[in-house]
Amino acid sequence: MKKALVVSTGTELLLGTTVDTNSIYLSERLEDIGIKTVVKSIVGDQRESLQRTFRQGLEWADIIISSGGLGPTRDDLTKEAVCDVLRLDMEIRKEELVNLKDFFAVRSREMPECNVKQAMFPREAEVLHNSVGTAPGMYIEFDGKIVVLLPGPPWEMKSMYVSEVEPRLIKKYNLSKNHVVRKTIKLIGIGESQIEQLLPSITDDTDGCSLALLAEAGEVHIKITSEGTNTGDSQQMVKIIARRIEEKLGNYIYGYDNDSLSSVVAGLLQEQQKTVSLAESCTGGLLSKLLTDVAGSSGYFWGSVISYSNEAKRKVLGVKGKTLSLYGAVSEETAIEMAEGIMKLAATDLGIGITGIAGPGGGSETKPVGLVYIGVAGKQHTGVQCFKFIGSRTTIRTLAAKFALDLLRKELLRGDTI
Amino acid sequence: MKKALVVSTGTELLLGTTVDTNSIYLSERLEDIGIKTVVKSIVGDQRESLQRTFRQGLEWADIIISSGGLGPTRDDLTKEAVCDVLRLDMEIRKEELVNLKDFFAVRSREMPECNVKQAMFPREAEVLHNSVGTAPGMYIEFDGKIVVLLPGPPWEMKSMYVSEVEPRLIKKYNLSKNHVVRKTIKLIGIGESQIEQLLPSITDDTDGCSLALLAEAGEVHIKITSEGTNTGDSQQMVKIIARRIEEKLGNYIYGYDNDSLSSVVAGLLQEQQKTVSLAESCTGGLLSKLLTDVAGSSGYFWGSVISYSNEAKRKVLGVKGKTLSLYGAVSEETAIEMAEGIMKLAATDLGIGITGIAGPGGGSETKPVGLVYIGVAGKQHTGVQCFKFIGSRTTIRTLAAKFALDLLRKELLRGDTI
Repeated sequence: MKKALVVSTGTELLLGTTVDTNSIYLSERLEDIGIKTVVKSIVGDQRESLQRTFRQGLEWADIIISSGGLGPTRDDLTKEAVCDVLRLDMEIRKEELVNLKDFFAVRSREMPECNVKQAMFPREAEVLHNSVGTAPGMYIEFDGKIVVLLPGPPWEMKSMYVSEVEPRLIKKYNLSKNHVVRKTIKLIGIGESQIEQLLPSITDDTDGCSLALLAEAGEVHIKITSEGTNTGDSQQMVKIIARRIEEKLGNYIYGYDNDSLSSVVAGLLQEQQKTVSLAESCTGGLLSKLLTDVAGSSGYFWGSVISYSNEAKRKVLGVKGKTLSLYGAVSEETAIEMAEGIMKLAATDLGIGITGIAGPGGGSETKPVGLVYIGVAGKQHTGVQCFKFIGSRTTIRTLAAKFALDLLRKELLRGDTI
Repeated sequence: MKKALVVSTGTELLLGTTVDTNSIYLSERLEDIGIKTVVKSIVGDQRESLQRTFRQGLEWADIIISSGGLGPTRDDLTKEAVCDVLRLDMEIRKEELVNLKDFFAVRSREMPECNVKQAMFPREAEVLHNSVGTAPGMYIEFDGKIVVLLPGPPWEMKSMYVSEVEPRLIKKYNLSKNHVVRKTIKLIGIGESQIEQLLPSITDDTDGCSLALLAEAGEVHIKITSEGTNTGDSQQMVKIIARRIEEKLGNYIYGYDNDSLSSVVAGLLQEQQKTVSLAESCTGGLLSKLLTDVAGSSGYFWGSVISYSNEAKRKVLGVKGKTLSLYGAVSEETAIEMAEGIMKLAATDLGIGITGIAGPGGGSETKPVGLVYIGVAGKQHTGVQCFKFIGSRTTIRTLAAKFALDLLRKELLRGDTI
């Protein structure tokens, strides 16, 4: 397997002013064709550091791909550093200079003198055309190694990688484009460690397959990756593993790959031609926001009442004053009346009511921060569930909104009862 | 200035399953005490790559700080790799073994055999105590260089850096903790390139000061960094630059450092003892969510109506059927009636109404995707503003919510009119 060093250049990446996403993209795309990224290096715009990074990388990597530092300014030094290391001289490429001048002419601007250096390349290099920006890239084979320089802006880098670099690598090393098969299974309501314990029995006899867990706010995503020379075999292997996970953890699975809780709920609402309305308190609009993240949500979403004050709960949702005084705003009873109240007001098929204590203040011994009640009202019955979430205000609100979506999803899956 | 290599280990970091935030934290903290991070390397859990990274780093860096790979499993190889490179043997440190056993005992669990290796260190190293997890860290001076190994989980890494590493580095190199003075100025409603053109005149005569721009969804943050041997001078320099920026761009500045639009609006509402309620359509709850991100928002936030359907606009907010049919749901007139409707319903001092087309569908020639009207109703008058945002559904919704907060902020700053 060929080994790659992925380099991202730019002083702004060293201090986190900008997060480096280029190297994530490149290492995934390289994996797709069977090239392994062994190290990623982030280097500032400094000639000496860049030279050292390329020189040290050439000692062990088959391929070095870098992004950034191909612009016209003094800080743009990647090409110069590589030519230093490879001891190559640069010369002006006339056709590139014409391209550059055209780029500015189309935009009714004169090309600044400093841009000339973007048209300079060593004779030994292939110039990679940039269809969306000014900086051409560079591809060079040297001493059995490949060095590729791409521009820094992500859209320029991606477009150049796809059209100019990947085909060259595939041809050079005789690789297959579908080397890797991936599938992500998304779960809610189960912990990472519970899943971890089950993994050995799932991947028991599945060579070339790997599982990675990614946990975030109530969800765990299981990423299945299968590498092999035969795409059909890899697909088969991923299917087998996915089926095993479904058998063991089916109750917690809400979707796959690009699914989100919102998009899955949206799909069910559309399919069943049901409408929904929401009454939120502690989540303060987050649940409505998640539901309307999905384009076309006006087809099934009537709207919401964010009843942050007790008065809003009474006045708009019709929660009884007696309920609030007897049981409190954060109670099973209030959640039910909120859900039923909004369903009635909106005349929708379903209504959700959420009330809880997001913190950091407002908790008590009997009603601590993190206590959340979620009611789901349907035509036939209203259910309510109590949660005790742990974490920051943001975490508690996010968990409450996600579990509300999950309750709605389960209600829709039961189907017949509403 | 001492030069550092910051290493993050873990195969999951190579493929972007997990984003490396440790190196961002470490390079910023190192900058604080005047140590320059020259390169960041991300390395998989592979002994050979780890060895090479440390070996190559020792050729040029004064300090290498790594995080990750100190756990008990086969994949945890950082300490082993460093000892290979430095040619040092490891031995069991009895006191660390006791600490580890205690850690498990407190949790009523037996220590697994594999954890023993976490208590093994070369004789030449100092062991760094981990107060929040099992993996101790390591600090070693070797041949005039410093190598520090920290655990991977961010909270363990940070706590160990602050209590065990920073003090050692300050003492060793006789550094000052306030080497760097930073200030961030936050603006909304002005483009990055407009600000960029002004920068040269702002930083004209300010040696040792640098400005970085960070743009995100309608906002630009200007980060001022001043480095110098004298903290007082640095602070003075930052003040001078901040004043220049305020003079030139004051109208666009909404806050500083940890401020968010929501927290600034929250502060003004509390200060003026005013209450607010919202009527959202295209933002679908996002504005309410942003306002309630701030703890204590129940003090000034009555609640919202997310009138996603026309029926909700009519029924709950009292928008006239005639307004909707004559001007449409996305119009100046509807935005005004929404803002006034919610203010009246909620009996608050201020009411906001937002209506627009978030896309990707639903646009027309006269009312394209991105068209958003925001109305702000007060006791004395109602204002409305029209925006034409460009971008994805998410971008348009985010921009609409942020500019609504900014309009509310400006209304509160005018003060006397409401």
